[in-house]
Amino acid sequence: MIRIEDGLIGAAALPATGLFLVTDANVAAAGWPDRLGADFAGRHVLPPGEASKTLARIEALLEAMIAAGIGRGDHVVAVGGGVTLDVAGFAAAIFKRGCPWVAVPTSLIAQADAAIGGKTGVNAPQGKNLIGAFHPPAAVLIDPGALATLPGRELRAGYAEVVKYGLIGDPAFFAWCEANGAALIAGDKTARRHAIETCVAAKTALVAGDERDTTGRRALLNFGHSFGHAIEAETGLAHGEAVAIGMAMAFELSVERGLCPAEEAARAIRHLAAVGLPVRTDVDPARLAARMAHDKKGGALVLTRGIGRAFLS
Amino acid sequence: MIRIEDGLIGAAALPATGLFLVTDANVAAAGWPDRLGADFAGRHVLPPGEASKTLARIEALLEAMIAAGIGRGDHVVAVGGGVTLDVAGFAAAIFKRGCPWVAVPTSLIAQADAAIGGKTGVNAPQGKNLIGAFHPPAAVLIDPGALATLPGRELRAGYAEVVKYGLIGDPAFFAWCEANGAALIAGDKTARRHAIETCVAAKTALVAGDERDTTGRRALLNFGHSFGHAIEAETGLAHGEAVAIGMAMAFELSVERGLCPAEEAARAIRHLAAVGLPVRTDVDPARLAARMAHDKKGGALVLTRGIGRAFLS
Repeated sequence: MIRIEDGLIGAAALPATGLFLVTDANVAAAGWPDRLGADFAGRHVLPPGEASKTLARIEALLEAMIAAGIGRGDHVVAVGGGVTLDVAGFAAAIFKRGCPWVAVPTSLIAQADAAIGGKTGVNAPQGKNLIGAFHPPAAVLIDPGALATLPGRELRAGYAEVVKYGLIGDPAFFAWCEANGAALIAGDKTARRHAIETCVAAKTALVAGDERDTTGRRALLNFGHSFGHAIEAETGLAHGEAVAIGMAMAFELSVERGLCPAEEAARAIRHLAAVGLPVRTDVDPARLAARMAHDKKGGALVLTRGIGRAFLS
Repeated sequence: MIRIEDGLIGAAALPATGLFLVTDANVAAAGWPDRLGADFAGRHVLPPGEASKTLARIEALLEAMIAAGIGRGDHVVAVGGGVTLDVAGFAAAIFKRGCPWVAVPTSLIAQADAAIGGKTGVNAPQGKNLIGAFHPPAAVLIDPGALATLPGRELRAGYAEVVKYGLIGDPAFFAWCEANGAALIAGDKTARRHAIETCVAAKTALVAGDERDTTGRRALLNFGHSFGHAIEAETGLAHGEAVAIGMAMAFELSVERGLCPAEEAARAIRHLAAVGLPVRTDVDPARLAARMAHDKKGGALVLTRGIGRAFLS
């Protein structure tokens, strides 16, 4: 069940008992978990950022859940960005061999992308998301109003994943992004809501029929991510920033290989740069290639024939 | 796919490439992994015993798999007892969000019970198997000949789980155990094979329709285990030994509650004791109760109305 509604966090109906909260320190400070008005049996607050995606953190979280008396019919409630959802969802996946969880995404990247599709997990020293499970949440509660407290850099980084949906399969939505992206980032509520609804619908459609990411259909969502993961690991850029560079690189490589007209690539990269996203990196290509060799998708790169025409090469 | 066949380990057809071996030091020393004649891309040898069932061990194993270049279409091959299967199967469950695995059980407890049903996992400091996943193996290859190198104490402990199948639902098999248990333990190959086939069929039937252990049907398999897990944690007895005591306690409690005739309980306990299994403990009952409160099954105990008549209370 996915609900998208302004003000939802103050109005959501959660089970009365058996709830365990997972959130991060920034989101807790902004008050979002409290606004749920729920009676949590226990809570675990993550340090903000990608560094929380470790198996050691999962262990600490699971032990806190056990100590709070959580049972396998109880619910983990994850309130936060993609990292919080990845960690909380994975802990739910392996707690007593699986308990249900509710995703309450509060970042743009989580609302438009990460909360949908059931992928959960943590990082290994050798690469991102190499440890994890498919464990879809029982409910996804998306309140675009929560973006009000999101730092500008994170909002912009999340916007890269929004544009991705236009670039991989929806030229009309990309054109909408060109016209409305700046307003969305500046705070336009109608634009935010429209973008989230469009991305959630697109991701739901791509995931349906490929829940386990085996047919290549869902793999399109990794557009820009093979490069992006490697850039993120090498540079410490935010995920969305690294994905913006990765998408630019995927366009450039597609042009080089004669797959994509140069003017389509230029148009895509121009929009990313126009909203303030990075589109190139000075990381040594050999280091990137070594990182990418460890990426779990192996050899298959997502390339493109133009805006809205990504494919698994 | 489940195969039960003497000599199977020397004759099994495994995929030619993409295999990662997980075994324990004793089983490796006995030569069973080598007899598979497979070309492993990498291997991880566990220290024997329950102490290997930790999330830290899973992390080391996953990192070894990544370093060996294992992909999510490759196979983990687990050769060993219940601990090895639990650890290897759980690592497979969360490696790149799930890769297939093959179970090659070499202990009686694993051949008759643990290899069937798809439960995998590790322990938390607060209790056994609190962290895990349902991830059935692609194939279970059971070679009763592997029991030839199993230490006598482990074989006897495993026999407790064999008797369990008679006690929970099959009075005729319990009578067979009374007649043939000693011969089975002493090395009778026909008896071993018959017992394994009977237990595998019984467990397969109980698991079918309750894969996720939610309907109460599969819970019967926990007969003796709520007490047993607590005894195991407090005493360091082998799992099967603790389960033997736990089953005796479940019978005694059932008699006390007027559910089970005293002579049925006496007969069950007499057989366990006759083959050399422990049937009582001097652990402080309050300590046991505290342990059991953390057991994941919560309040529901499996009790019995007599031999072959266990039920979820």
